[in-house]
Amino acid sequence: MEPIRDFAQLTSHLKSLHSRKRIAVVCANDSHTEYAVTRALEEGIADFLMIGDSAILEKYPALRQHPGHVEMIHLEDPDEAAREAVRIAREGDADILMKGIINTDNLLHAILDKEKGLLPKGKVLTHLAVMEIPTYHKLLFFSDAAVIPRPTLQQRIEMIWYAIHACRHFGIEQPRIALTHCTEKVSPKFPHSLDYVNIVELAEAGEFGNVIIDGPLDVRTSCEQESGNIKGIVSPINGDADVLIFPNIESGNTFYKSVSLFARGEMAGLLQGPLCPVVLPSRSDSGLSKYYSIAMACLTAKKY
Amino acid sequence: MEPIRDFAQLTSHLKSLHSRKRIAVVCANDSHTEYAVTRALEEGIADFLMIGDSAILEKYPALRQHPGHVEMIHLEDPDEAAREAVRIAREGDADILMKGIINTDNLLHAILDKEKGLLPKGKVLTHLAVMEIPTYHKLLFFSDAAVIPRPTLQQRIEMIWYAIHACRHFGIEQPRIALTHCTEKVSPKFPHSLDYVNIVELAEAGEFGNVIIDGPLDVRTSCEQESGNIKGIVSPINGDADVLIFPNIESGNTFYKSVSLFARGEMAGLLQGPLCPVVLPSRSDSGLSKYYSIAMACLTAKKY
Repeated sequence: MEPIRDFAQLTSHLKSLHSRKRIAVVCANDSHTEYAVTRALEEGIADFLMIGDSAILEKYPALRQHPGHVEMIHLEDPDEAAREAVRIAREGDADILMKGIINTDNLLHAILDKEKGLLPKGKVLTHLAVMEIPTYHKLLFFSDAAVIPRPTLQQRIEMIWYAIHACRHFGIEQPRIALTHCTEKVSPKFPHSLDYVNIVELAEAGEFGNVIIDGPLDVRTSCEQESGNIKGIVSPINGDADVLIFPNIESGNTFYKSVSLFARGEMAGLLQGPLCPVVLPSRSDSGLSKYYSIAMACLTAKKY
Repeated sequence: MEPIRDFAQLTSHLKSLHSRKRIAVVCANDSHTEYAVTRALEEGIADFLMIGDSAILEKYPALRQHPGHVEMIHLEDPDEAAREAVRIAREGDADILMKGIINTDNLLHAILDKEKGLLPKGKVLTHLAVMEIPTYHKLLFFSDAAVIPRPTLQQRIEMIWYAIHACRHFGIEQPRIALTHCTEKVSPKFPHSLDYVNIVELAEAGEFGNVIIDGPLDVRTSCEQESGNIKGIVSPINGDADVLIFPNIESGNTFYKSVSLFARGEMAGLLQGPLCPVVLPSRSDSGLSKYYSIAMACLTAKKY
């Protein structure tokens, strides 16, 4: 498989599979979600199970134009809708779970329920996103902009594994993973830089398979060869990173918000850890971003 | 004075003052510093005192074309050059100090010397930068991408004061200062968000004079009105921030590196706290960025 280098290629690839994923959407009562769902229906990459109040189909008549591909479960109470969607995903009747305008905490509550939830015991819950940036030559994955404030070494190792699995789905044979920091110096003042040393050693010992992992590297040196050259930094990443692992949630979130706003980057993002991909967009994400997240979920969901 | 909205206006404004600042440069033996110094000489905004080995004028003959505006002090040892430059700045014979290719730590050592240095006792040392971003409608100040890993409340208050003073020099009457975070929620999980509440209260009580301070706000909501509208967030910043204060050095540095690379932002930056402005560029900064830093220093240096 050729690597998928932008979101247009992602859609083309999914269409070429002629296999629709089934997505349970909780409370899809907003126009950005409607755009994303309608687009996915038009591209023919997914079927939808809309769980929520009965106003959805009336409000968004476009959804009625795809008979056989949209079902509706009427549940007026958002928490009840969340629990039902999680139950359906848990039992395998949906491949993907997606948040509409229900409050994130309410949906997470249902996902994290120890008895009836979607997160296997001991699994690390984190967020992985991928951005198409007009000024970068390929897709750029990054983690974590949304869930873990300050990852431990073990959590960071799991974040890297999730990123590697996603890269494989995107056809990237040897993902280049940069462990980012302000500088290239390791210092006890920054405990994550010490963790980076451990991770690079694990990677060099073959622990992560066919990947290139290096750090600490700053964002510029990770993504631009010239920066490394000027600073005299020799890294196997060589300014060609596929994945940026951020030191903490503040830096990951700053990357996402700054690059989406100032460099017109479009993002797809998924929760990692649950039994199935979970699309958990934030309210200010564009309709396009929500559609790309659906597409990323369709690509990385297990069942075909 | 009309607000200075981009770096071209900054140069025009400085030229209109017909007053040259005097800048001591330590070890200017690199082409990016040469570009910056030559450009400042051509614009007529500064005179230079080059402190370092005797090769500088031979290596960069353009500097000889401005007789009366470039002096040279020959000191082969970089540490000695740093101490001499600091002494000259301390005694008022230079208005601005600038780093060439001497190691940052070596110059900082001279600046921070308790007896003979440039930092008054009790003053907070931090970094303030300003970026011209093609997709933003005005200059955007930010702090701290380079010095303080995790600012305390008191340090953050000083950072805000430095930013306010710089904004005044740029003609911004009522600076809009956003205290950035991942979300708009205050949470004890993120101690800086609690500090933000204190700072907003101080600002509302008039402590900082004629400014607008709000937070926590994410970077998008700080700089784009539409994001706030979608999320239903009412903030006096209104997506029109002049200044972003970052929670920690990792997020500030990520902002700087990401926006300069992916959104083609050009940056000027200065150390804050010392008796005179200190231009302390990093090795990978462009010649243009070093020139803009000189211009920012000329504008904010006290003496005219």
